[in-house]
Amino acid sequence: MRFTSRTSSDGVSEQLFTLGEIPGVLWTPEGATGTRPLILIGHGGGQHKKAPGVLFRARRFVADCGFAVVAVDVPAHGDRPKDEGLDRIATENQARVAAGEELAPLIAEFQALVARRTVPEWRAVLDAVQEADHVGPGPVGYWGVSLGCGLGVPFVADEPRVRAAVLGLGGALATAEAAARITVPVEFLVQWDDERVPRSQSLALFDAFASAEKTLHANPGAHADIPAHELDSSVRFFTRHLT
Amino acid sequence: MRFTSRTSSDGVSEQLFTLGEIPGVLWTPEGATGTRPLILIGHGGGQHKKAPGVLFRARRFVADCGFAVVAVDVPAHGDRPKDEGLDRIATENQARVAAGEELAPLIAEFQALVARRTVPEWRAVLDAVQEADHVGPGPVGYWGVSLGCGLGVPFVADEPRVRAAVLGLGGALATAEAAARITVPVEFLVQWDDERVPRSQSLALFDAFASAEKTLHANPGAHADIPAHELDSSVRFFTRHLT
Repeated sequence: MRFTSRTSSDGVSEQLFTLGEIPGVLWTPEGATGTRPLILIGHGGGQHKKAPGVLFRARRFVADCGFAVVAVDVPAHGDRPKDEGLDRIATENQARVAAGEELAPLIAEFQALVARRTVPEWRAVLDAVQEADHVGPGPVGYWGVSLGCGLGVPFVADEPRVRAAVLGLGGALATAEAAARITVPVEFLVQWDDERVPRSQSLALFDAFASAEKTLHANPGAHADIPAHELDSSVRFFTRHLT
Repeated sequence: MRFTSRTSSDGVSEQLFTLGEIPGVLWTPEGATGTRPLILIGHGGGQHKKAPGVLFRARRFVADCGFAVVAVDVPAHGDRPKDEGLDRIATENQARVAAGEELAPLIAEFQALVARRTVPEWRAVLDAVQEADHVGPGPVGYWGVSLGCGLGVPFVADEPRVRAAVLGLGGALATAEAAARITVPVEFLVQWDDERVPRSQSLALFDAFASAEKTLHANPGAHADIPAHELDSSVRFFTRHLT
């Protein structure tokens, strides 16, 4: 792991790094020393490690909770090179949807394919980031919706360091099997009028989590329109379960 | 309106009162003067104005938010006289369920009947309580689940002083028409394994609210098992919308 830059604003330190071929960013409280909870944020499709939504949430978790937050680019996103295999599938999927095929199963299939790469990558990121003195081996949380849910469910299922997860905007098609292996507390976000994920698929994924403590939060609006008060709720959820 | 007793503990003042034939209780911060938000809590079936769940929530809203809280006995509950008409219907319903009839439509029909009495009663309670110097004409919130939802939906629909409502454990059967007239923010609680309200009925009632801001919170467990963290959420919801 190689840190390539460090900046700081409003009490939040931001360090860019690379871990092998994976570009990432680590946010911590300015001047922090010692072990603290760490949240990994998985970005959405077409986004990247410093997309506005990722950045906004990361700064809140650091500023409000004193946590460390890490995000990395998913393959073929952000600063990572194009991936001919993934690009070809994405182009084929666009054509299949244009030809009338259902969107949700194609998304699910694509996310399952990408997850086979991101699960080991993200576990390696935890290993490396927790070596840092100002992060350390504390409890881990995961926050991810949409693509971040499709990749996050198998990650949370496979990674015992994750103690609590905010997931959402995802359906049961690809991830129900992995969801059934998740037993940590889950806060699950549903957009009631989601144009990408059928409501029944969302409810089925919530059903699939084996967690004794799981809460579904549904709000009206389209896929991208999660209301601001849900971030307040995420802050409290992680505070409750990681501290 | 006649106050009949006043006690105080842990900074919360509790005044019993009667308004005509309606027995009620008003909680306010000890020593409070001046106008403040008021929350009306509707109790559950078989409960009363000082049932443990009502008392616990009332004290939180007073202590955490500085609000006033009022609760009254629903007809045939608590300190109110038996009601032969309602008793007969309740007994008949028990027999009909024992004979294999579906429970939810019978509950819905019964709650609709009671609501024709409680809506005008509760409006009169607001009129009277808001005359008190330490309550005044501030914004009003409503909290009620189960019977408190069946009676609360028509109340919130008809009473413009109510600016925000926490409702739940109720279905669309009896109250969808009234729900479609509600436009204030709603936080709606669903117990995912509710043995009294079918899940589809709960989701249909959430759908029916005309509110631009509405949030569904679903948690695993039976009808009576709302988790404690939902009260924290109610506190924040009312703080957001009444202050």
